[in-house]
Amino acid sequence: MKIRFYNARILTMEENAEIFEGELHTEESRITYVGKGAAPNGEKEWDREIDCAGNLLLPGFKNAHTHSAMTFLRSYADDLPLQEWLYNRVFPMEAKLTKEDQVDLAKLGMLEYLTSGITSNFDMYLDNMCHAIASKELGYRTVLCGSMNDFGGTVPETEEEYYKINEVSPLVSYKLGFHAEYTTKGETIEELARLAQKMKEPVYLHLAETKKEVDECYGRYGMSPVKYLDSVGIFEYGGGGFHGVWMNEEDMDICLNKNVSIVSNPSSNVKLASGVADLCTMLDKGINLALGTDGPASNNALDMFREMYLAATLQKVTKMDAAAMDAAAVLRMATTGGAKAMGLTDCDVLAVGKKADIIMINMHRPNMQPENNIVKNLVYSGSKENIKLTMIDGKILYENGEFFVGEDVEDIYKKANAIIKRCKES
Amino acid sequence: MKIRFYNARILTMEENAEIFEGELHTEESRITYVGKGAAPNGEKEWDREIDCAGNLLLPGFKNAHTHSAMTFLRSYADDLPLQEWLYNRVFPMEAKLTKEDQVDLAKLGMLEYLTSGITSNFDMYLDNMCHAIASKELGYRTVLCGSMNDFGGTVPETEEEYYKINEVSPLVSYKLGFHAEYTTKGETIEELARLAQKMKEPVYLHLAETKKEVDECYGRYGMSPVKYLDSVGIFEYGGGGFHGVWMNEEDMDICLNKNVSIVSNPSSNVKLASGVADLCTMLDKGINLALGTDGPASNNALDMFREMYLAATLQKVTKMDAAAMDAAAVLRMATTGGAKAMGLTDCDVLAVGKKADIIMINMHRPNMQPENNIVKNLVYSGSKENIKLTMIDGKILYENGEFFVGEDVEDIYKKANAIIKRCKES
Repeated sequence: MKIRFYNARILTMEENAEIFEGELHTEESRITYVGKGAAPNGEKEWDREIDCAGNLLLPGFKNAHTHSAMTFLRSYADDLPLQEWLYNRVFPMEAKLTKEDQVDLAKLGMLEYLTSGITSNFDMYLDNMCHAIASKELGYRTVLCGSMNDFGGTVPETEEEYYKINEVSPLVSYKLGFHAEYTTKGETIEELARLAQKMKEPVYLHLAETKKEVDECYGRYGMSPVKYLDSVGIFEYGGGGFHGVWMNEEDMDICLNKNVSIVSNPSSNVKLASGVADLCTMLDKGINLALGTDGPASNNALDMFREMYLAATLQKVTKMDAAAMDAAAVLRMATTGGAKAMGLTDCDVLAVGKKADIIMINMHRPNMQPENNIVKNLVYSGSKENIKLTMIDGKILYENGEFFVGEDVEDIYKKANAIIKRCKES
Repeated sequence: MKIRFYNARILTMEENAEIFEGELHTEESRITYVGKGAAPNGEKEWDREIDCAGNLLLPGFKNAHTHSAMTFLRSYADDLPLQEWLYNRVFPMEAKLTKEDQVDLAKLGMLEYLTSGITSNFDMYLDNMCHAIASKELGYRTVLCGSMNDFGGTVPETEEEYYKINEVSPLVSYKLGFHAEYTTKGETIEELARLAQKMKEPVYLHLAETKKEVDECYGRYGMSPVKYLDSVGIFEYGGGGFHGVWMNEEDMDICLNKNVSIVSNPSSNVKLASGVADLCTMLDKGINLALGTDGPASNNALDMFREMYLAATLQKVTKMDAAAMDAAAVLRMATTGGAKAMGLTDCDVLAVGKKADIIMINMHRPNMQPENNIVKNLVYSGSKENIKLTMIDGKILYENGEFFVGEDVEDIYKKANAIIKRCKES
């Protein structure tokens, strides 16, 4: 499959890249040409030539923290206190899910990612293999993350999952991880640290999401979660923390020195009243930052435009400084920062040899006009309506509002409704 | 023009209304039928019959605080401190605008309102007549608000504007108002209060937007802006305050007793770092609340979904309570609350005899699935992609991503780009 995008504006997201007018070519899963103006040797035989009409090509957004199959709980239990939400609403319903349910529900999440220009997600949920199968079946790119804790999973099982899931599809990869410090015994964490060191692999987890979590960790270990985890050697080969809302300067310095990315989930953090992560300080220090939507039960949209807008504006209002956090830094979080956090070094920028994970932004919409600053337009007024095309691994999976995923989307909606109906009634 | 919507789900937004399946008919500018199931006497001759395929009909959103023609400054000067933004960037550029520019720029704003299901706006800007003309030309419903202050406009001119603008079109109405306490001399405010009392009209203004504004008012009058304005009799016939971020309980009680609506602009307030209005307390007291996007230079999107999401979630995070502010209350702010604040008592709900200002929500999208709770889906995961149709005064102006406003939208985009280019260069 050879595709030529012409009459495009292109933002490669390489360092200091500016938007230019030009062409981009893909062949199978890779980008084979990116350049200004019209491309040389235009006589190639194309499977498709796409006149971009001045629309913008950009690397796909990376949704660096998700629980995709939680789609079935969207709008099921909002506007409740966090503990009631989690223990009385979420956990009992999750216990009723079959593996097949989890595949179908993950697919619903992926459809929504496509509408928001998200070309890969970093997922952790009940049965990671279910998500891996869904990704393979729809052609979606996913990094999965170990999620064991005291209620399920062991370190040997995590090691086994690592090898199994990394083999499912070239679109699927796996990272070591566990749910969180507050749900996992110290000896298990230490065992995982030894595995990570043996395998020379990074480790990921929910980290410093709520004040309660941090306070309790001090109670248990006399240290913050970051400091405790570092003390047992979990971050010897880097890793990442999801949320990072309640971090002190020492925590941040550890993250910087140990190559630990922080994945911020601003919508989830405000909706669940967890707080606002201090992204400005982390950015100043040089920590790699990424963005995630978290699960649809706690957000509830899977929309990178929402996350970008909040990542910028919540910094402004909490710092009481309209100049805090600029749009370009936020766009880096949503693209290259996410790719780095997820180990997707092949999908980060638009350049020859990189994977063709590409989105096209429709500039011919009122919210993208006038064009004073296209990056600011994207971050501050962009919306799902601007996603004209989403390509993953060289295949167009979403274009002009339609899905090309090899399955009937109405059928996926029906299954999701049937699952929640069954769970409520049983 | 007789239009029949069938196979619809309908949320009338009447008090305690639940969503039902049924039909809705319009004839010219009015709703002529709303009912469950199939309608009787289906043999009527229709100009158009629309199979809603289970999609949701709802009263159009009311954008109760706007400066539409500021579209030209979108993304022109973000990420700057408020004072620098306003004095060094916004004011010098605005001084270069012609009347024709303001008409064209207001039209760009209206196009974006249509994409977000906003069927009317409450605007205040340099020359209100320009917006009135733009509304008339595109068929858009607008309430305009007097904006005089010490730098332009007088009370007699406001009275003249009242009569002139109320005559432009049935789609356009006018309310007495002024810019803000901090930009307007006390004697002018008192003169306007006398006019409002003579005309028995409500008065609207920017109110308690920033802490600085409130502190300075105490310095001038020894009172908060709300208390001072009430003391000079400005609210004898009600009115409204745009923003209401820095209000104490006494201020709120005055608003309740004097029938003063508060129009919250959550996006603008976080982006400009003004703060977060205490909507929960105002709601508990029974104050009429509405939502606005503010101008595109300070938001930057004109998107009621963004405002609804933030109206709910910013209450949760500032109260540190995930149960604070529920979705249904927010949807009322965006529809009936706005209509009440704007005096659009004919456009508030879907009922026979009301104006046909209607939107259709596309439920066949991943972000609206599954259907655990459609109102929560709307508020927490809804987006512009869900606006399938926007009807104003019985005319469909936007459907399936296309505009039917009698003008070439690309031409409106070109004009906006030409205006900002000229302003930058001159």
